Amino acid sequence: MQNNSLLNEIRTKQPLVHHITNWVTIFNCAQAVKSLGASPVMAHAPEEAAEITSISSALVLNIGTLTEDIIGSMLIAAKAAAEKKIPVVLDVCGAGASAMRNQSCIRLISSGFINVIKGNASEVSCIAGLDVTTKGVDSTDVSFDLADVALNLSKKLSCTVVITGKRDYIAGDGKLFTVDNGSELMGRVVGTGCMAASMIGCFAAVLPGDLPGASAAALSAWGIAGEKASAKSSGAGSFLVHIFDELSSITEEDMTKSQKITSLTI
Amino acid sequence: MQNNSLLNEIRTKQPLVHHITNWVTIFNCAQAVKSLGASPVMAHAPEEAAEITSISSALVLNIGTLTEDIIGSMLIAAKAAAEKKIPVVLDVCGAGASAMRNQSCIRLISSGFINVIKGNASEVSCIAGLDVTTKGVDSTDVSFDLADVALNLSKKLSCTVVITGKRDYIAGDGKLFTVDNGSELMGRVVGTGCMAASMIGCFAAVLPGDLPGASAAALSAWGIAGEKASAKSSGAGSFLVHIFDELSSITEEDMTKSQKITSLTI
Amino acid sequence: MQNNSLLNEIRTKQPLVHHITNWVTIFNCAQAVKSLGASPVMAHAPEEAAEITSISSALVLNIGTLTEDIIGSMLIAAKAAAEKKIPVVLDVCGAGASAMRNQSCIRLISSGFINVIKGNASEVSCIAGLDVTTKGVDSTDVSFDLADVALNLSKKLSCTVVITGKRDYIAGDGKLFTVDNGSELMGRVVGTGCMAASMIGCFAAVLPGDLPGASAAALSAWGIAGEKASAKSSGAGSFLVHIFDELSSITEEDMTKSQKITSLTI
Repeated sequence: MQNNSLLNEIRTKQPLVHHITNWVTIFNCAQAVKSLGASPVMAHAPEEAAEITSISSALVLNIGTLTEDIIGSMLIAAKAAAEKKIPVVLDVCGAGASAMRNQSCIRLISSGFINVIKGNASEVSCIAGLDVTTKGVDSTDVSFDLADVALNLSKKLSCTVVITGKRDYIAGDGKLFTVDNGSELMGRVVGTGCMAASMIGCFAAVLPGDLPGASAAALSAWGIAGEKASAKSSGAGSFLVHIFDELSSITEEDMTKSQKITSLTI
Repeated sequence: MQNNSLLNEIRTKQPLVHHITNWVTIFNCAQAVKSLGASPVMAHAPEEAAEITSISSALVLNIGTLTEDIIGSMLIAAKAAAEKKIPVVLDVCGAGASAMRNQSCIRLISSGFINVIKGNASEVSCIAGLDVTTKGVDSTDVSFDLADVALNLSKKLSCTVVITGKRDYIAGDGKLFTVDNGSELMGRVVGTGCMAASMIGCFAAVLPGDLPGASAAALSAWGIAGEKASAKSSGAGSFLVHIFDELSSITEEDMTKSQKITSLTI
Repeated sequence: MQNNSLLNEIRTKQPLVHHITNWVTIFNCAQAVKSLGASPVMAHAPEEAAEITSISSALVLNIGTLTEDIIGSMLIAAKAAAEKKIPVVLDVCGAGASAMRNQSCIRLISSGFINVIKGNASEVSCIAGLDVTTKGVDSTDVSFDLADVALNLSKKLSCTVVITGKRDYIAGDGKLFTVDNGSELMGRVVGTGCMAASMIGCFAAVLPGDLPGASAAALSAWGIAGEKASAKSSGAGSFLVHIFDELSSITEEDMTKSQKITSLTI
């Protein structure tokens, strides 16, 4: 898969990836982007949101600790991204946990500016209008066929849909991928989902013309770095140390050797 | 002490612990909760505060970087917690450092929705109306008998009062405990007090009927994890790595073997 | 250089260093200050900003994730600092990236309350009115003579100017220093610039009468701790662990032995 050259591209171009995100994992998202080789910028003031987006190569939105003000800034930034034709990734963090989260997702998605919707099984199922019970920001079991959920939502909204979990599902542009990289430990660290969305932002920044491919490559790279970090870690604390180190040192050879991306016929 | 089964209970039930907290240690609080085995959710928008609390099993409030908006959301969430009869822990972080902090504590406590008040010696003494000088968010020496301070305040406010320090004091429901677990290094890490309050939230979530007991067990577990982490650490940086690992691996046997909880006659 | 005794002074007096800073690196700034031996307090509510400053020994402002509200609180705190005659450090984080950032810097600086302006080459050049293109919050190459930029801006604004980079430049009170401590790895960690400003706050708190000297000593101490941390690290994750440990253990002997401060004739 020629997507491996994306890692080199990120490190050469060091694209600016603008985030409007939550206050819990904001540092971890910035450091993950920087460790990978791109350049993070976090700026949420409505007065500068559009201007910062206009000098960026991708925009990552995350509603983890949303407020009305923040949603307003997200809409401003997303509009600027659409005008500049740079990709916008929306992490629907905690969708299903409150009416405000659901309505904010609807506002953001119905703006037409979102290119990639990303969440775990229960979050994306909720966005798809399926009947799920969400437990805060952690994923809960759903009984749906996740490939179908991703494909149908992708068609309905004309955007790329990413469902993360033990197996990741990516659907968009008539394509469907699964990614099986990652490790069990990642589920015990706060913010691995948020950082995965940031990784998609980095890869989308250098491959804006193929967002399903960029998303699959991003989740695979993230998962491989996670596998390497987990092998050296005895818990969430040491994992966070190692993942930031591994993101810097992961190579295209690592990706060629270890990536578990499957393209499914649909 | 049968409270040891609480750890198993937390890991089995994975209770959702809602936080409205400060922007400095918000990640560390979330990760500490997740490492222990519970499920953290941080949500401060007034529009969703009540709804998120209503799906949670405990609420932890921390005024470390309070603003008027945040206090408003705390009151909304605390009311929802009272209606659902789930425990509310208030960390009076930095009480005494400004009139706004003191007045906000009074507003929160006089709402009648707070079940556990937690702070260091100078903070709780300040809440008790005693004459102390506070130095920001770090504890300063006080000359009071802390057992008396905790007991009297507990009786006056009809809630559990927790004073953390080298020796922790917990008073409530006519009970008085001291906890002597912990290590000197913990005082050099930003947010150990905030994380201790989060631990109380986790234990209170599974033992809402005995908040002094839950608080003592929480501080003991936190202290034991801290002792184990400190033994492997050479400073604040490595401590934070190890504490997140140790919180995941601490067992009921560790607690039985190492806990230093004393029940005092009053 | 007798500035080495500053480290002892910080650890003995444990000065309170008030920050109004960004949401990305707020924990790291607090922990860096605490690890060094001073006492951090982060408080941004306009109702308490002045009161917290009035019990502090230095004020550190950082516009990394500025909003109108935050700038307002900064002005309140800076005024209180001026009245109490404690030093105010302004990190012009991301200056040049948006009109709002530039205008906010002008508002803050023209208040007359700022004593130390600190940024990387592109940020400070932007403040100096020079023609630069900024890429978010990361420094971009500039072709100016940085010693001249620092000196001229320092004279124009009658304050100390600090330009950080591989070589740091400090100008003020008719003095000019360069500092060559630090390591390449520090450029790959989010927030090293912010933490450097916090270090200046700590040293300025105990040497308010010589801010260029305090700034040079701070950047040298920070750089030496960074060199020691880098030697033990394999990336940004492990660096952050080690820097917090090293800041606690760095001694005056380390500083005497390793500091690379040059006083230039001007």
